[in-house]
Parts: sequence; structure tokens; C-alpha cells
Amino acid sequence: MGQTLTEKILDDHLVEGELETGEEIGIEIDQVLTQDTTGTMVWLQFEAMGLDEVQTEIAAQYCDHQTYQFDFKNTDDHRFLRSAAGTYGAHFSRPGNGICHNVHRENFAAPGKTLLGSDSHTPTPGGIGELAIGSGGIDVTVAMGGAPYYIEMPEVVNVRLEGELPEWATAKDVILELLRRLSVKGGVGKILEYTGPGVETLTAPERMTITNMGTELGATTSIFPTDHQTEDYLERVGRGDEYVELQPDDDAEYDDEIVVDLSDLEPLIAQPSMPDKVVPVSEVEGESVEQVIVGSCTNGGYEDILPVAKMLEGRETSMETETIVAPGSKQASEMLAREGWVAEMMAAGVNFSEATCGACIGIGHVPSSDSVSLRTFNRNFEGRSGIEDDNVYLCSPEVAAAASLKGEIVDPRNLADELGDLEAPGIELPDEYDGSKTDLIAPDEAVDDELIKGPNIGDVPLKDQLDADIAGEALLKMEDNITTDHIIPATQDILMYRSNIDKLSEFTLSRVDDTFAERAREADGGVLVAGENYGQGSSREHAAMCPMYLGIEAVLAQSFARIHRANLFNFGIVPLTIDEDTYEDIDQGDEIEIVDDVYDAVTSGQEEFTVRVNGDEEYTATLDASERERDILAAGGKLAWTKEQAQGDSGAAPADD
Amino acid sequence: MGQTLTEKILDDHLVEGELETGEEIGIEIDQVLTQDTTGTMVWLQFEAMGLDEVQTEIAAQYCDHQTYQFDFKNTDDHRFLRSAAGTYGAHFSRPGNGICHNVHRENFAAPGKTLLGSDSHTPTPGGIGELAIGSGGIDVTVAMGGAPYYIEMPEVVNVRLEGELPEWATAKDVILELLRRLSVKGGVGKILEYTGPGVETLTAPERMTITNMGTELGATTSIFPTDHQTEDYLERVGRGDEYVELQPDDDAEYDDEIVVDLSDLEPLIAQPSMPDKVVPVSEVEGESVEQVIVGSCTNGGYEDILPVAKMLEGRETSMETETIVAPGSKQASEMLAREGWVAEMMAAGVNFSEATCGACIGIGHVPSSDSVSLRTFNRNFEGRSGIEDDNVYLCSPEVAAAASLKGEIVDPRNLADELGDLEAPGIELPDEYDGSKTDLIAPDEAVDDELIKGPNIGDVPLKDQLDADIAGEALLKMEDNITTDHIIPATQDILMYRSNIDKLSEFTLSRVDDTFAERAREADGGVLVAGENYGQGSSREHAAMCPMYLGIEAVLAQSFARIHRANLFNFGIVPLTIDEDTYEDIDQGDEIEIVDDVYDAVTSGQEEFTVRVNGDEEYTATLDASERERDILAAGGKLAWTKEQAQGDSGAAPADD
Repeated sequence: MGQTLTEKILDDHLVEGELETGEEIGIEIDQVLTQDTTGTMVWLQFEAMGLDEVQTEIAAQYCDHQTYQFDFKNTDDHRFLRSAAGTYGAHFSRPGNGICHNVHRENFAAPGKTLLGSDSHTPTPGGIGELAIGSGGIDVTVAMGGAPYYIEMPEVVNVRLEGELPEWATAKDVILELLRRLSVKGGVGKILEYTGPGVETLTAPERMTITNMGTELGATTSIFPTDHQTEDYLERVGRGDEYVELQPDDDAEYDDEIVVDLSDLEPLIAQPSMPDKVVPVSEVEGESVEQVIVGSCTNGGYEDILPVAKMLEGRETSMETETIVAPGSKQASEMLAREGWVAEMMAAGVNFSEATCGACIGIGHVPSSDSVSLRTFNRNFEGRSGIEDDNVYLCSPEVAAAASLKGEIVDPRNLADELGDLEAPGIELPDEYDGSKTDLIAPDEAVDDELIKGPNIGDVPLKDQLDADIAGEALLKMEDNITTDHIIPATQDILMYRSNIDKLSEFTLSRVDDTFAERAREADGGVLVAGENYGQGSSREHAAMCPMYLGIEAVLAQSFARIHRANLFNFGIVPLTIDEDTYEDIDQGDEIEIVDDVYDAVTSGQEEFTVRVNGDEEYTATLDASERERDILAAGGKLAWTKEQAQGDSGAAPADD
Repeated sequence: MGQTLTEKILDDHLVEGELETGEEIGIEIDQVLTQDTTGTMVWLQFEAMGLDEVQTEIAAQYCDHQTYQFDFKNTDDHRFLRSAAGTYGAHFSRPGNGICHNVHRENFAAPGKTLLGSDSHTPTPGGIGELAIGSGGIDVTVAMGGAPYYIEMPEVVNVRLEGELPEWATAKDVILELLRRLSVKGGVGKILEYTGPGVETLTAPERMTITNMGTELGATTSIFPTDHQTEDYLERVGRGDEYVELQPDDDAEYDDEIVVDLSDLEPLIAQPSMPDKVVPVSEVEGESVEQVIVGSCTNGGYEDILPVAKMLEGRETSMETETIVAPGSKQASEMLAREGWVAEMMAAGVNFSEATCGACIGIGHVPSSDSVSLRTFNRNFEGRSGIEDDNVYLCSPEVAAAASLKGEIVDPRNLADELGDLEAPGIELPDEYDGSKTDLIAPDEAVDDELIKGPNIGDVPLKDQLDADIAGEALLKMEDNITTDHIIPATQDILMYRSNIDKLSEFTLSRVDDTFAERAREADGGVLVAGENYGQGSSREHAAMCPMYLGIEAVLAQSFARIHRANLFNFGIVPLTIDEDTYEDIDQGDEIEIVDDVYDAVTSGQEEFTVRVNGDEEYTATLDASERERDILAAGGKLAWTKEQAQGDSGAAPADD
């Protein structure tokens, strides 16, 4: 039986397991990327593991999220990240050099390689045949240490493209069409593999717009085969020698198939406030637009902004509409500046901004109240723009430019009819991506050879090996559906302590009970009790790290959300499932004791544990865990486990000094 | 007797008083400018006065301070400002179009005119012979309403320039030299008038660097005569017809004279953390520099950045040093982009930023802990950069560029020796300042014709005419030296309510007693009691407006700081001076009653007032006020007074509708 492209790359990197859907596999990681909001913890963990050099072919640290500082914390983080990259052998991209995905695709992404990144849009270089997956920070840490990445083998779905895009329809409309059809949950547990005759009609940057925003489908990743378009792109970025041809076998079998005829597409738009609320632009024409922003990792490339520049050249943006262009990389900015396009856009009324994530994560350019903002971004979740009840639409750069000229949402085809002389700009790649690399510091040019930590940068506590005894007070009893936002709120005033677990842990579960952190510190140990679906929401690792730091040894819940459950293992907290009666019988403040020798039970594969409450009543709790998860728990978490692995197996990761 | 240039312009605009040093004069204002942190209150006051059109020749509203929004408040403020400009007939400069002083000098500043602005660096266009003064917002409001601006006639000091600047010395070094000699208090109560043969060797933009930073001397304003350099500049900005020749009379008499021989100057630098801690750059050579920022209203012009671009062209900035260039206006950005300089700077490693005040006021690009930041700005007060205990140096663009190349502070003359091929760039004006005006909306192009207020924008309360009776509880008894920061804290989380007095007033005096605002609201009236120097510090009007809003009718203090005392008059609160014994005898919570008919006493010129405490003991308090101040107090504050004036005198301001 033939293989899909996904299977070929996975096969090539397989360290453990078999490529059967739903089975756990371990794969070797060639490249990792981190950014500034997740990177500090990655490097602090790397330090805590006692490793002394990055083991992947490429590790790259970008500074793109927190670039508008209001105090020293973000700047100190950037300096720490530079020092960590220098110390451990990673590339460092300075703040202002661009968004991680854009800079990575320009400099490092390569067909056939695996990439793990602590950012959800890591799948971007799937457009040039790299198998790229987003993950939590600690997974990146251990991958950098040379250990495999473990994942359940996803389904592989064939997205067959036919035909060719008509004028004014773009790659953005391809992914918007998929979101319209599949919804934001349509890709969960799946890898989308693009095939069919339509593929070759799309340039590599267009393909990367599609793979980037595959994240909004919930997909594990998205990937395109490679061909002359891929080779052409790699040559233009000066890395033609990294081209390899990658195609699925003709008789590859897929778990599912979706067909998209490109020639049927028209300009689409996602309405507020979900990326899958997609309709044709013509359906919402006439809506006044106060703000247009072109940029982000989805549509912030040179090729994305050039059409906007062409549409605005010699024209003026509407006075009712603020138009901001924030390229995805400084390379794109520099090229557009060198060719005169920056001046042209400025003349048309554009506010040209630094190359950062910026407005996409609510940092800068927040819309005004009750106003429409049209953006070329990938997400329009309510409140993400920085204002509650916002009205953010997502669209292609061409639709954005049309709105900027008209002051309202307009199908660019209709605007072209109206203006008479507005031509569809189409897609055009530069002969050469020749922006300078001054802001990308290679490991052999490193500025620092030791870590520089500002006062807000703490240490990562390494938990000891799992104890035989777990006993303590039920410090907090919670209801169903507690989110990671309840456990560690994501507001700016709290998340600025993301590199300082000692300080951040003070806010643990404060939204449920603001005395909790203090009580936990005083109790020096204890357990949490929760209802169903404990830890749903964001993948934030801090939601496990902080309770661990406060001494929490176990969580007894009726059920756990998938990612948070993994994080509990990763930080050495025992996640025990209890039934509803047990939940009802335990009160906050009860003394909880696990009767078994916990270390022995966990390592021996025991599933049922006896929980004694107030030295009296006994209940049964269940530990559902794979052998690897049990090993991680026993070691005291993934850091300690990886360290043990490294010491036991000198091939996988470097020994301590 | 001949006149100074200052006297000539003042004479030309004199409405009341005589040009005797120390005498109060009233002058007609031709132009006003406001920016976004002070502008919302200016326009809310304008609305509250019931006026319907701006009466000055030019009124211009800029958006430059709060351009990196984290929620809707700043964006809503900008939209409100656009709507106010449209409604009342002011020019509106969109966010991103540049810093008020830069955009104003490019578009409106003109020799012989008077300019009043609610920003301390308003004196900038003194460099082309405009008499430009910074003031509180309400002064701008009433000037816009057509009323005169009142000021004590300052001393006029002759700053005589001789010789010519040598290579690598710049206009920035002229003002740094004055700061070195005179200190930051050296200009208080003075207007600095530049004369002498050195004047004609300086281009108009160089002169404006000097007048801009005259603010750091504490000067009321600074002014240059006009000549071929002024005419040349006006022609290049497309307003040659606005040139008028303005020179002091040969026999003009000055209050003082200072001589600066330009040919003696060398590259200077202000050390942390005061603009007058000036030494030659060579004295601090070798200090590592982590951050260089070129820009601000002092050195953010095309002419300021061009030398940096020339110095960086074909070179690379140090990897240890982040280099940020933020032009003062989008016009400068566009011109630099069009000529290829933006691309050159980016290639050298520059992070090219939007045209805003930005880092100068601690918004974005905050230095990291324990690091040196070198800036071409005008202020380096401790903490202003956004980090406590910062190390900010102030210097010329040339010195900044040299540090960026070397990674440490270096006298550019020494760097030139070291590199061999680094030439002094000198000063060069463009043939034509031909950036587009798309982002400057003229009154006749206005987008809005009615005010648009977001939910955070409240009304300005108009106080009623002064009562005959003042009686109430002594709601708070304070010590000596209470600052306006105590009265209304300037932190971002509080000042974001600057347009919302109802909300902002909740924080009134919270740093002294956080129950105060609630108690004051409940008491519905009352008085404040304080020791010496009440209201020192920033000129913040909110420190009078919020107590007024809470119903405070009088402040009894041993003494008042000058500006806050004026603000109390402006907001209708009676400032009464008491002696130490009286201060000692009054306790918080006492019932205070002013025995006199207050309205009659204030209007009749009565100086001594009888204060009865707890219905029993009587004390004497003093009101020291000019006739105009008494009128303002009686009317209920400056807004109400101006409204009265307008109704009584149709020439000075428009009637109500």
C-alpha cells in the first residue's frame, strides 16, 4: 500500500510506535522554534534540565509578541532570550525582525523536515512540505534536548484542489472556504494533506497562507507536496539546495477526502467573531469600516502586501478608515521600502508599522468601541483585538485594500467596476528575497555566552521524584469546567510574570478563591478536587507549573481536559479520576490520604488507588496513563524524566556537565 | 528705546496690560495645538462652554502620545478628537501622522504668530520666529474660544551666538551646552531670544531643535529672529508666502545676556537622569549601550535622521545594541522611504518605527534592567523611560548613530578616526518637503460633524457661580508637600480615565486616603486642609477638576504651589491660606464654615476671611488673588467665566446657540 506524504515524512522520523491512526508515535524533530511569550519558560526549563547545547539541526528564538513594552519585563525577557540562544546554540531573531513564522519560512523551513514550535501557527511551512506542529513549551524543550516528540497518529485527510483561482480570489479564500465548510473543529485530530491539479497553480507563499490558517480548523498540521513552485520559492530565498521532491504515492490511502474547485471561489470574509463564520464579501457589502489592518503571519509576506500597495498606489485611503500595514518580517518591510512601495502606501494614507504580531494579539491598534475592523489575520475571536464585543472581520489583503479605499466593506470586483481603472493585482514573487539578515543572529555570531536574567526572571523549580506518600488537605474544591484561565488568568497584568513562577504562582486559581495561593504555600502540600472537564481551554503550561510550585501533589477530578491532563503529567502532579459520589463526599478542608505506595503503584502500572478521607472513609480513584506517562510522573515531571533519559542514553541528549 | 523681538510680537498681540517684566499681560492667540493626552479635556471643556466654532486662525488636534492601545479607551479618544475637530473647525492629524510639534512646524507654524499648546514642547516653532508657549488645557480651550491668554511678562534674555559649529557638533550640542551652563531651572520665568552672527549659520530645523529643548531649561519659550534661513525653510515646506522678516531693534534692551561661541562646541551628552547633567561625549566613552533610539520632537525631523542614515549606510549596527528610528512625522518617514534611506537603515539593523512620541514617554521600547539607553530625546528624568532606575543618556543623532555602530558610547570624531571612511554627515535639507498630507484632515474635509463619545468619555461638569455660603466637613487633613501625583496619580491604569471625570474622580487623593472619594461624594461638599506647598509637581488640571467634581468648595492650606493654585481658580475652588496655628487646630472631620458672604467677599476684593470651626472657634484665612482671578472664582471657574465673557462681549468669542 502506498504512503501519503505525511506518512513518508513521519516514517522517515519515526523513533517509536507504528503509523496507525490513534497510536502513540515518537518522532525525531529536526527544527524547533519558540517565540517570546512561550520562549522564556522553554529556556528556563532547558537550563533546569542541565543540558548545555541544543541538539536539533535548527533551533530559533523569535521576539515578536511582546514588543511594545510598558516596563522592563518584556525587554528583560528579550535580553534573556538572546542570552539563552547564544548560550545554548540557537538562532536569535531580534525584536522588530518579524513574526516567527515569517522569519522561519524565509530562513530555515525546508521540505521533508520536522518542525516543532511553541506557537499554534507553527504549521505555516507545511506549504513547502515541512511537517510542522505546534505544541506546549516543554515539548519544545525536550525536543531541543534531542528527545523524540510523542503524539497520537492523526487521521490524514486528502484536500484535493482542482481548477485555478479566478481574478480577485486568493489563497486566503481557499482556507476561508474550508473553514466555511468544516468549521473551527473540522480539523481536530487530523492532518490536512493537499493534493490535486490545483496545487501547482499556487505559489509557495500562497500555500503557506493556507497551511498557516489550517490551525483555525483545529488541525494538527497541514502540508503540501513539493514541486517546481516549492523549488522556485527556495531559490528566491537563496536556499535552492534545500529543495527535495516530496509527493504522496499514487495509491496512498487517506482517512477522508475533501474536494475544493479553486475556480468556484470568490472573495470571502469571516464575520465576527469566529474564523468559520464565512460568507461571500458581497453579502456584507456596505458595512462602514473604521480600521483596516494588513499583516500577521497569515498575510504579512512581501507577496501579500505588494497587491495592497499596487491597489493603493496613486489613490487615497478613506478618511473614515485608518489603514495600518504591519509586515510579517523586516525583510518584507525592507524590500517594500527599497522598491518604493512603502512610500507609495504612506502617501495613500497608510500607517506603516513594525514587523510584529501586534494588533493580532490585541497589542496596539485596538479598535474603537462599536466599530468594524477588517483584518487579514487568522483569528477574530471575541475580545482578542483588545476590546470586548469587537467586530473583527477576516479577509484577503485585496478585500482589505478595497475596504480601505471605499471606507466600507466592498467586493473588490464591484470596486473595480466602480473605479474603472483598478486591476486585480494578482500574486507576484520578488526575483530574490534580498532583505538583509542583520537582525538574525546565528549561533556562531552569538552576543552572549551566559544567561542574563532580569529581576523578573526566576528559576524553573525541578520537582523531586514522586513520593511514596501523598497526603494533605483538600485545599480547594471546584465545580465543573474549570478552565486554564481560571487556574492562571491570561490578563496582561498577570501574564507579564510568565517568566517568574514564584510571583506568577501567587495568582494561581485566584479567580476561584483568592486565598488559595497563600493557603497552599502555608499548607506545604495538598490536593485539588474538581468536577468534570478540569483544565479545559488554552494549553497554558503555567496552569500545571504553578500548582506544582505551590506544592500540589494530586488533582482528584471527575474528568480532565486532554491537554491539561498531559500538562499535569509533565509537571509531576498525579491526575486521579473520581466518580460523582466521591466528588460529592469530599469537602474542601478534608484531609486526603492516598493509601497506596504511590511511587510503586504508578511505576507498576496500578490503575486503582485508595483514597482515605479524614482518616476514615475510603474511596477508589483511577489513574489512566500510558507507560511513558507513568515514567514521567514517577520521575517528577517531564523535565526530570528527560534528564534521566539523557543520563541513561548519551545518544538522545547531552550529559550533564 | 528699541524692542526685543519678543516685545515686538507681544506688542502686536497685546490685549491687556503693559510689557513690564512681572506684570500680567493678556495676548491674542493666533494658533493653538493640542495632543491626545490633553486634547480630550480641551474639547470637552470647549463643548461645556457651549461654543460652536474655533476662533483662532489655526487650531490643530494631533494624536501622538497614546498610539499603542491596549483597549478601546485610547482609540475612542482618537475618534472623539477627530469628531471634535470636525465639529468645531480644527485640523485633525490622524494617529501615526506624527508628533504634534513636528507636524505643526511642517504645516502651520509661521513667523510673527502666537501659538498656545497644551504640551510643554510647544515652543518648538520659536525657531522660525513664532512666539509659542505651552500651557494647561483650559488655557487652550479659552484661547480657542477667542479669549486672550494671560501671563506674567517674563524676563527676556539675549542668547548671543557667535562663530560656527565645527564638524560633528550639532544644534543639539548648543542646547546641551546651555543646559550644562544654566541647569534645568535656568530659564524659569524667562524667554530666551537668540541673536548674534551665529544665528545665520543654523538652518531653521536646527534652530527648532534648540527652541524645542529650551523647555528643559524651564523657559517660558525660546525664539529666533527670521532671515534667509527661515524663508528658505518655509519655501521648502511650501509656505514661502508666510515669511516675514522679524529682528529685534539694534538698541533692544535685554534683562540678561549669555554668549555661546558655536565654534567652541564639541559633541556633548546628558548623563542619567537629568537633561542638565551634560559632559563631553569623550568623558563617558566606552560605556556599553544596549539601546539607541533616534527620534522625538527634538531630533525626529528628516534633517535629523538623514545624518544617521548616511552614517549607517553600508555598515551594520552592533549586535549588542538595538537601534530604533522613530521619525517625528510620517512626512519625514515617507520622504526617507522614497529616497531609499529607510531600506538602507533597515539593512543596517534599524527597527524603523511609527511616527509617535512612543518611547520618549515610556510607551514601547522600554530599556531592559541595568542597561544604558542612548536617545536623541529631550528628557531623561528617572523612570520616564518606563523603568525605575533607568540609565538614559541624551545626545545628537550623530552621537547616537556612532554608539549604534560601536555598541558603546563613542565620540564620533574618534569613531571616524577608527573607521577611516566615516565622514561627518553635516546638515542637509530636502529640496522640498513633499510628503503627502493624506493624514492631516482640514476643517473643510472633516469626516464628522458631531461629537462621537465612547463609553469612557464623560462630560465636563460646569460648576455653578460661587455660593454665598461655604460650609462643610474638613474631609481630609494632609501634610506638607502634597503633589498633584498624590491628588490624581499618573499611572497608566488611572490616567486612562483622563476623559472620564466621573470615573477618574474615584481615584482622587487615593494615595493619601483611599476612602476619600467615597466620603466626599457622600458628604456632598466639604473642604480640604493641607500644610505647606499644596499641589506641587505636574501641572495636571485633573488635580483641581476632580476635587471640584466631588464637591470640594475650598482648600485651606499653609501655602500653595503656583500652577495648582491657578488651577484651583480655574476650577472654582477657593484657595485660602491659613497660618500654622490654624492648621494645627483644625482636625479632619471638623465642621468648617466661612462666616463671610463668600461671593460678595471674593468679588469685592476682600482678602481676609473668617473661618469658624465646629461652630465655635474662629480663625482668619487669606485670599490672595488678582481681580481677574476673583472674577474667575466668582463665575465658578474659568469655563464659566469665559462663557460669561463671551456672552457679554460678542467680539471675543461666539455666543451660545
